[in-house]
Amino acid sequence: MQEQHIASAFDRDLETIQARIMKMGGLVEAAIMDSARSLETRDEELAEQVRANDKAIDALEEMINEEAARVIAMRAPTASDLRLILSVTKISGNLERIGDHAKNLAKRNSVLSQMPPVGDSPSALRRMAREVERMLKDALDAYIQRDVELAAVVIQRDHDVDQMYNTLFRELLTFMMEDARNITPCMHLHFIAKNIERMGDHVTSIAEQVIYLVSGERPEDNRPKADVTSVSL
Amino acid sequence: MQEQHIASAFDRDLETIQARIMKMGGLVEAAIMDSARSLETRDEELAEQVRANDKAIDALEEMINEEAARVIAMRAPTASDLRLILSVTKISGNLERIGDHAKNLAKRNSVLSQMPPVGDSPSALRRMAREVERMLKDALDAYIQRDVELAAVVIQRDHDVDQMYNTLFRELLTFMMEDARNITPCMHLHFIAKNIERMGDHVTSIAEQVIYLVSGERPEDNRPKADVTSVSL
Repeated sequence: MQEQHIASAFDRDLETIQARIMKMGGLVEAAIMDSARSLETRDEELAEQVRANDKAIDALEEMINEEAARVIAMRAPTASDLRLILSVTKISGNLERIGDHAKNLAKRNSVLSQMPPVGDSPSALRRMAREVERMLKDALDAYIQRDVELAAVVIQRDHDVDQMYNTLFRELLTFMMEDARNITPCMHLHFIAKNIERMGDHVTSIAEQVIYLVSGERPEDNRPKADVTSVSL
Repeated sequence: MQEQHIASAFDRDLETIQARIMKMGGLVEAAIMDSARSLETRDEELAEQVRANDKAIDALEEMINEEAARVIAMRAPTASDLRLILSVTKISGNLERIGDHAKNLAKRNSVLSQMPPVGDSPSALRRMAREVERMLKDALDAYIQRDVELAAVVIQRDHDVDQMYNTLFRELLTFMMEDARNITPCMHLHFIAKNIERMGDHVTSIAEQVIYLVSGERPEDNRPKADVTSVSL
């Protein structure tokens, strides 16, 4: 009876922290879309808001880590409960990094808005960002529902994001070679594309975490990296 | 008496984990230098070794996190001891990210080695990497000795790294504008420079963690970011 009581207290604690994860996830999803939209519409105010909101995301991560530690200290959880509670801190860590990347995007806004547009890169970037944002939504749903299949689909979709990045990378190279005046804006656009591609990697880590939680097995570490720009052009 | 016994058991646990942090730090310092050296000497074997060693770094981080959780579960530490043990997981997280950046550098080696060299960028990159590696060594010393002054010096030195990055960024732009054939190698060199600059940011986070541990106060969050490329060129 006593043990049952302790077990459900742990469950309540975990639910409270998971609710905070979902809140953090919502903020990060908004940051992804707002940062990409600010680039496309050259909306400096929206970019500033993304930068400001990143502090709230960071604060949530800190809060989640501290609560997780308190739960561990208070409940002395079993091995499998410990794995659950540690997953919370890993996922919040991934969310925090995605938020950082969104902030990096938003930071480029003011400099890019002073330059002539290059091709339709901002809308390509927004498509990439939208795909990452949808993947994140699904990864968090998969986490809450412990849905391994959905998590596997998310991991698969990261290849599409990598593919979008590769295409854009080649386009930017072409623009730069065509006209030296494109070089500076393209360097910034490439920086942005790389940031979005990395967001996708962190979403993938969240999905992998779900699979690990449910199956106890790590998805193979050497999944093919589809950013081929480090290997060939 | 009983309490004393518990306190020193916690201290022993903490020391064990800190020893692992130092081991992890040693591996990461080597990764920084080896990845930069592999670029300069175009040593594909050394680059491959950096990529392989990153798995050992990742495994150490996981081990440190699990041990920290176990200590928290077993010892139910006080608030200030909890802060100590959580600092361990933050620092190992920063070390893991630095290791990732070194791996990213090493990954660029095979593609860069097929291209003509551009200026003396690889040796400039190695100077940057060496400075970051020295900062990391000092940050970890500051951590073990709880040396706030040394930590503050490390934070200050990150501005030099940012400055080196800014200079290199401008040089790369110039090379690209001079000759379109430089564009592709310069994109890779810029990627590498940005990775080193980010390593410096993570070293700074470790130093900030030391200050927080000792003084209980976070260094102001809005320290001037000296990567000015997101603001102006």
